[in-house]
Amino acid sequence: MNGPTIGWDVGGANVKAARIAGNSASSAEILERPFPLWREPHRLSAVLAETAERLGGARRMAITMTAELADCFDTKRTGVDFVLDAFGTAFPDVEPWVYGTDGRFRSVAAARQQPLEVAAANWMASATLVARVFHDALFIDIGSTTTDVIPIVGGRVSACGRTDPARLQTGELVYTGALRTPMCAIVRSVPVRGRRCRVAAEHFAVVADVHLWLHGIDEGDYTCETPDGRGRTRPEAGARLARMVCADLEMLGPDDITAIAEHVARAQIRQIASGIRQVMRRLAEARPTLAVLAGRGAFLARAAAERVGLVTRDLADETGTEAACAVPAVAVAYLLAAMAEI
Amino acid sequence: MNGPTIGWDVGGANVKAARIAGNSASSAEILERPFPLWREPHRLSAVLAETAERLGGARRMAITMTAELADCFDTKRTGVDFVLDAFGTAFPDVEPWVYGTDGRFRSVAAARQQPLEVAAANWMASATLVARVFHDALFIDIGSTTTDVIPIVGGRVSACGRTDPARLQTGELVYTGALRTPMCAIVRSVPVRGRRCRVAAEHFAVVADVHLWLHGIDEGDYTCETPDGRGRTRPEAGARLARMVCADLEMLGPDDITAIAEHVARAQIRQIASGIRQVMRRLAEARPTLAVLAGRGAFLARAAAERVGLVTRDLADETGTEAACAVPAVAVAYLLAAMAEI
Repeated sequence: MNGPTIGWDVGGANVKAARIAGNSASSAEILERPFPLWREPHRLSAVLAETAERLGGARRMAITMTAELADCFDTKRTGVDFVLDAFGTAFPDVEPWVYGTDGRFRSVAAARQQPLEVAAANWMASATLVARVFHDALFIDIGSTTTDVIPIVGGRVSACGRTDPARLQTGELVYTGALRTPMCAIVRSVPVRGRRCRVAAEHFAVVADVHLWLHGIDEGDYTCETPDGRGRTRPEAGARLARMVCADLEMLGPDDITAIAEHVARAQIRQIASGIRQVMRRLAEARPTLAVLAGRGAFLARAAAERVGLVTRDLADETGTEAACAVPAVAVAYLLAAMAEI
Repeated sequence: MNGPTIGWDVGGANVKAARIAGNSASSAEILERPFPLWREPHRLSAVLAETAERLGGARRMAITMTAELADCFDTKRTGVDFVLDAFGTAFPDVEPWVYGTDGRFRSVAAARQQPLEVAAANWMASATLVARVFHDALFIDIGSTTTDVIPIVGGRVSACGRTDPARLQTGELVYTGALRTPMCAIVRSVPVRGRRCRVAAEHFAVVADVHLWLHGIDEGDYTCETPDGRGRTRPEAGARLARMVCADLEMLGPDDITAIAEHVARAQIRQIASGIRQVMRRLAEARPTLAVLAGRGAFLARAAAERVGLVTRDLADETGTEAACAVPAVAVAYLLAAMAEI
């Protein structure tokens, strides 16, 4: 039973896959592919097949997903079915295992029966893996789109929300990320030459433009689409930021753009910190002092964690950056491979 | 010189045209066409030509625009040029007049010289027309996307911002509207079964879904695109609202959706009221007691104006609903026709 395993994290905007040869997470080969599922859902099975092939394939596969939330699906049930169908088409000879928010794998047939149990279970996989190394910690994983804040207490995942809405209520899910978040979802106003200026309620700029402008990320990290279809250079990001106050780079200079970007970055960090604080309040005496950071937005996680006085540790130092930016995929691969060993 | 005049209001999401035979605004024939310019800018000249033809054409044309802000243009200058080029292509035999934020018309050549003076001048045209009837009033025009709050004092337009960024700073422009505004640009959280729930920073729902759910608008008023490409029925709008808290209509019932929608509508009205209050503060002793309401979002303007204690009057009662939903187009037509009379 010791062949390779591919773990999948199928999101609405990215497909991530991790292939492990044995059962060691550090040996994982990772592929991440930006894929706006909502735009061309029918291509999912082809994307899965190509990704598996580039990784060298596997007969054992573990699935976690958040793609069921994409608005091409009228309900989560439809979304879960669609994703599982795509796996069936892409890999007719594989019987994949689907990870649930209860921390267990089930068959595709069982997953279809209880779709809400396998919808958005990726955070549970990640935290379960991290809990094997860090006994007491707040695991903070910031991806392109969302932030997970998962407490680990005494070596166990101690989250209290199971569904996405419940997690949004507890602070364990903060719907803000390092790349795709529309700027108008973060701030209502920004300073322009010292005076408060309302922002346009338009998809003119995303937070990737903010972090690129401030050198938090570089052009290679900006893997999502740009709102205006233009490039990912700093001037192009700056033009998008200017448009958020209905201006352009003939009206605003670099210092004006920096003032806007810094304001948005600070607001986003406060938003993440508010989730962390809410989770910490609930933990009361059990609250950890260590934050373990992962994801493309680890730089934001660090700023937010430090703001609430936590000691920080990068998961990337243990696993390498690639694995730390695809923890759910690595985690389901590893957890399934470990089960197969038993 | 008494032939027909067409007034144009070329926005980023809608093209509106008003044709008047003489110089009476009440006789205006109006055409409004949803047109997402940023997606297919090359089609603008054809849209203009078709619209003019359907109205019966005219040799005299007046232009006002906000389309220059669309993110297919790297600067406003490029956008203004593009729109004026489209008029040249659509109407080679017409020499249109372009309205400026100084309240004057200029030639196309002069407009190209000073593009910032003709960018987003539509509010000035509207307010100038309204000022001929209402001597002291706050003119509040809420369209699909934005809100203009323009004081009229002693029969004159008494706005203090001239550019969009300046207007966003003064409260004279509040970038929120009756249809296209993304819900995530209005609220950071909503109540779900009595408990605060963060919302998804995604373009899952627009405020048209909120107002349709609450019966503020009906399906026919929902003229913008739906975020998920689905229909404009109440259940479809409700599903989009549910998705904003990462839920669906199998997880939330109608009462849950109503609680979410009411919260968003109240937040939007507060946002509009904050613009009104800011404008009123600046006016000090000169502040009017009457609000004149226009646009598809007149129902929101009324709620916000009443919130700050203003007496309200619907412009539609004077001009009819169609003209009150296309005031800038009617205004530039009327103002140009009146000039031609002199």
